[in-house]
Amino acid sequence: MTDRIADVRITPIAFRDPPLLNVAGVHQPWALRSIIEVETESGLIGLGESYGESDTLTNLRRIAPLLVGMDPFHLNALTQAVYRSVGDDPDISHPFPPKGDKARASALGAFEVPFWDLQGQLTGRPVHDLLGGAVRSHVGYSAYLFYKFARHHSDPGYPTDTWGEAITPEQLVEQARRMIDQYGFGSIKLKAGVFEPELEVEGLRALRAAFPGYPLRIDPNGGWSVETTRRLMPALSEPGLLEYLEDPVSTLEEMGQVATFASMPLATNMVTIAFGHLPRSIALNAVQVILSDHHYWGGLRATQQLAAIGRVFGLGISMHSNSHMGISLAAMTHVGVTLPNLTYASDTHYPWQEDEVIEGGKLSIRDGQLAPPEGPGLGVKLDRAALARLHQNYLACGITHRDDASEMRKHQPDFNPARPRF
Amino acid sequence: MTDRIADVRITPIAFRDPPLLNVAGVHQPWALRSIIEVETESGLIGLGESYGESDTLTNLRRIAPLLVGMDPFHLNALTQAVYRSVGDDPDISHPFPPKGDKARASALGAFEVPFWDLQGQLTGRPVHDLLGGAVRSHVGYSAYLFYKFARHHSDPGYPTDTWGEAITPEQLVEQARRMIDQYGFGSIKLKAGVFEPELEVEGLRALRAAFPGYPLRIDPNGGWSVETTRRLMPALSEPGLLEYLEDPVSTLEEMGQVATFASMPLATNMVTIAFGHLPRSIALNAVQVILSDHHYWGGLRATQQLAAIGRVFGLGISMHSNSHMGISLAAMTHVGVTLPNLTYASDTHYPWQEDEVIEGGKLSIRDGQLAPPEGPGLGVKLDRAALARLHQNYLACGITHRDDASEMRKHQPDFNPARPRF
Repeated sequence: MTDRIADVRITPIAFRDPPLLNVAGVHQPWALRSIIEVETESGLIGLGESYGESDTLTNLRRIAPLLVGMDPFHLNALTQAVYRSVGDDPDISHPFPPKGDKARASALGAFEVPFWDLQGQLTGRPVHDLLGGAVRSHVGYSAYLFYKFARHHSDPGYPTDTWGEAITPEQLVEQARRMIDQYGFGSIKLKAGVFEPELEVEGLRALRAAFPGYPLRIDPNGGWSVETTRRLMPALSEPGLLEYLEDPVSTLEEMGQVATFASMPLATNMVTIAFGHLPRSIALNAVQVILSDHHYWGGLRATQQLAAIGRVFGLGISMHSNSHMGISLAAMTHVGVTLPNLTYASDTHYPWQEDEVIEGGKLSIRDGQLAPPEGPGLGVKLDRAALARLHQNYLACGITHRDDASEMRKHQPDFNPARPRF
Repeated sequence: MTDRIADVRITPIAFRDPPLLNVAGVHQPWALRSIIEVETESGLIGLGESYGESDTLTNLRRIAPLLVGMDPFHLNALTQAVYRSVGDDPDISHPFPPKGDKARASALGAFEVPFWDLQGQLTGRPVHDLLGGAVRSHVGYSAYLFYKFARHHSDPGYPTDTWGEAITPEQLVEQARRMIDQYGFGSIKLKAGVFEPELEVEGLRALRAAFPGYPLRIDPNGGWSVETTRRLMPALSEPGLLEYLEDPVSTLEEMGQVATFASMPLATNMVTIAFGHLPRSIALNAVQVILSDHHYWGGLRATQQLAAIGRVFGLGISMHSNSHMGISLAAMTHVGVTLPNLTYASDTHYPWQEDEVIEGGKLSIRDGQLAPPEGPGLGVKLDRAALARLHQNYLACGITHRDDASEMRKHQPDFNPARPRF
């Protein structure tokens, strides 16, 4: 008997987020996510996690009723329902639009993970088994360093986090040391595009000196111009300094220009973020590493297809992260163990979040590695008290979309997020 | 409890094949295949079908013992076992070799289908459910026409088939009419490269006149030169004549040249036949339709990945066929119903085969369509008496590799299969 979908619930949540700096400004005191529950007639619940912004919620709520009666194995039927609800072309056989389809693919990814979770529960198998089986026991994650303020100045009532300020190279090294001591990470990524690039290169050098041999990346989030990147290239090319350079510039054409003089692989989660971007990206050889993300590429199957395309075209594959809870981390880890060419440690904001929405609290990253949670499906269950509390946060915080620039203006009234900043 | 693989059996078979003509010569009186049985500890049997030539058998027999103890869900473990046994690079994370990897991918495809069949039996679901679900109820197949001799002159004891000679345009039309009457095909493919191209174009015109509105293709199997193709292009470009032109020339570079002056899509199962061929093929825009084939692309998952790549790069997808039994047809149909962009009717030699190795005899193509066999897995079971008989044929016929050229020399001693022939 097929166990069909009987109910779909989408619950927006908000959880505390430290004042992390990036090219767009600074993280708001609350990060938003949506928790997706897909329940079958027999009462099984498949879990998913996606963005919590209002436009995402609108799309997910439009699709949800269409899933009732569906078989959780029918990912193609899910895809059809998503295409009929989001975007301007309902035909799933058509080529992907060259302009990208982030809203559509994000909606697909939000529901596809709960479908896999249900398939796993229905077959008594972990999701990674259904994705072809694990090629490794664990997924490696990297220490994700941020420049940061000591506190959310704008919100005096918001508790100060324990990480303190990170502005100077010494503070960055201190942040890295704490994070590596706590989680055992074996590689480091620095979110950049915040200060004068030469200062950020000083940060890199301090990290290199403190952690020799640790693969090190820098991500200015498109905050630099092509010429600035060219000026920095000799410093960035110091032997053994960088594993890859992520999104120094903000357009695909500019990344193609940088690729002509870069001495290291270029990575992206900004310019090649949809299947429709790949032909131009490949023709330009604009990037050599794609930071995949099942949330916006269209789910775990899409992540596997992207990795397969990476093998075809010689592109490296890693995984990108936004602020997230354990459902996302579990999904990333299930698909990550099945990707033969996931040859870089993946990003995660997980150490920056104190809250959790799954039973048992936060998953434990040890030695920079995480195994997929055990048990059928994703192997995680909702902590309903936590869900209620985090949903209450959402209702109370009043934030409905992410706006790092406005948040930054509370610190620095003349802040301008226009890129390139440098 | 995981039901692990306990035994793997590979049985070569031979079945009668009519004297069908192609650029390489003429089909031998017996076509070879291998029947693959993957049996679990609990006695479930997953079925597969592949080539029966001795080099394929050698590879399959080398891999078979490595599969014992494996979980049928672990397609990545299967892939690792295949890579360690066939080819010169055992690392499944490496980019696909630009020169292609047909032997390796064929060995993978041979075992991957039985793994899916077992997954279906273990979960009580048809294979297409496990591949994301059907987007259509049936797969469309085309009438596959061949120039042919009336009999295998070389083998007087071999029974004459009922199709008779097909050399003239009138005989081709007669062949098409019988095949369409019997199976309801709605499109037509002519295997060509046999006679002077202008004669073959006459055949096309006769088919077009007799079957107006039927999509029509011609496949010279690389038998023409670029200049011959250029000379023929005005005739081939008659409005409404051709749906696509398949492999007029025999190399990727030449296909790229033809693409610069062709007025119709170019299709291939000869020049772009492996993932490693795709970058160059796409850079040249050498082909616009890929005739996928799970037997040599690496299985059903690889077929889905190829179709996904087709959506990314705007390539059409259809399916290629060699002489085959019902296990292959079932597998093609299961994956075919899951491919959104399978927008062309697929090829099958099935009407040319009288024998069958599955219970219940031949699957019934009606209205040119076939639904996946019902029931868990592939939905087909071995007819063990038929298997024994066809294996006896294999032992008795003495053929161990396909050689259409030598067979042709029995008819025409000076036959030269060198391409381009015209």
